[in-house]
Amino acid sequence: MWKAKIQVTLKKSVLDPQGATVEKALKALGYDNIGDVRVGKYLEVVVEGKDNEEVEEQVVEMCQRLLTNPVIEDYTFEVTEV
Amino acid sequence: MWKAKIQVTLKKSVLDPQGATVEKALKALGYDNIGDVRVGKYLEVVVEGKDNEEVEEQVVEMCQRLLTNPVIEDYTFEVTEV
Repeated sequence: MWKAKIQVTLKKSVLDPQGATVEKALKALGYDNIGDVRVGKYLEVVVEGKDNEEVEEQVVEMCQRLLTNPVIEDYTFEVTEV
Repeated sequence: MWKAKIQVTLKKSVLDPQGATVEKALKALGYDNIGDVRVGKYLEVVVEGKDNEEVEEQVVEMCQRLLTNPVIEDYTFEVTEV
C-alpha cells in the first residue's frame, strides 16, 4: 500500500483572496515579518499498487481528472510506502 | 527569506466528509484500488527571519494561534530558504 500526499496550490498568476485574508490576520496578530501567504488544498490518498512508478502515474491521472483544476491550479505530490 | 509549507489535516478520530466524498468520486471514475482519502489545507507562508530555528518557532506559534484548530486538526510543516 502506498500513500500519496498531494499539495494543490493556485497558480502564481491567480489571485488568492483567502491567502490575502490569512496574511492580514497574521499581521494583525503582530507578525510583521511575514510576506506572501497562499492557501491551497492538501490531500492524502491511500492507493494499492505494485510499485512506486505505477502509483505515481495513477496519481497524476487522478489529479488531472478530478482532484485539481489544471486551468488555475498547480499540484505537487510525493508517494511513500505505508 | 524563508518559506514555510504547512500541511493541516483533520485528526484521525475526526470524521472527514469531504474526504469521503472525494473517495466516492474517485471510485465512481473507476479507481477501485484506492483506500482512505483525507482532505486538508495547505499553506505557504513567506517569513523573514535570521535562521531556520527562529522561523520554525514562529511557524509553530502561528499554527497554534491562527492557522489550525488544535482541537480537531494536526499539522506538519517544513521550512526552506528561498
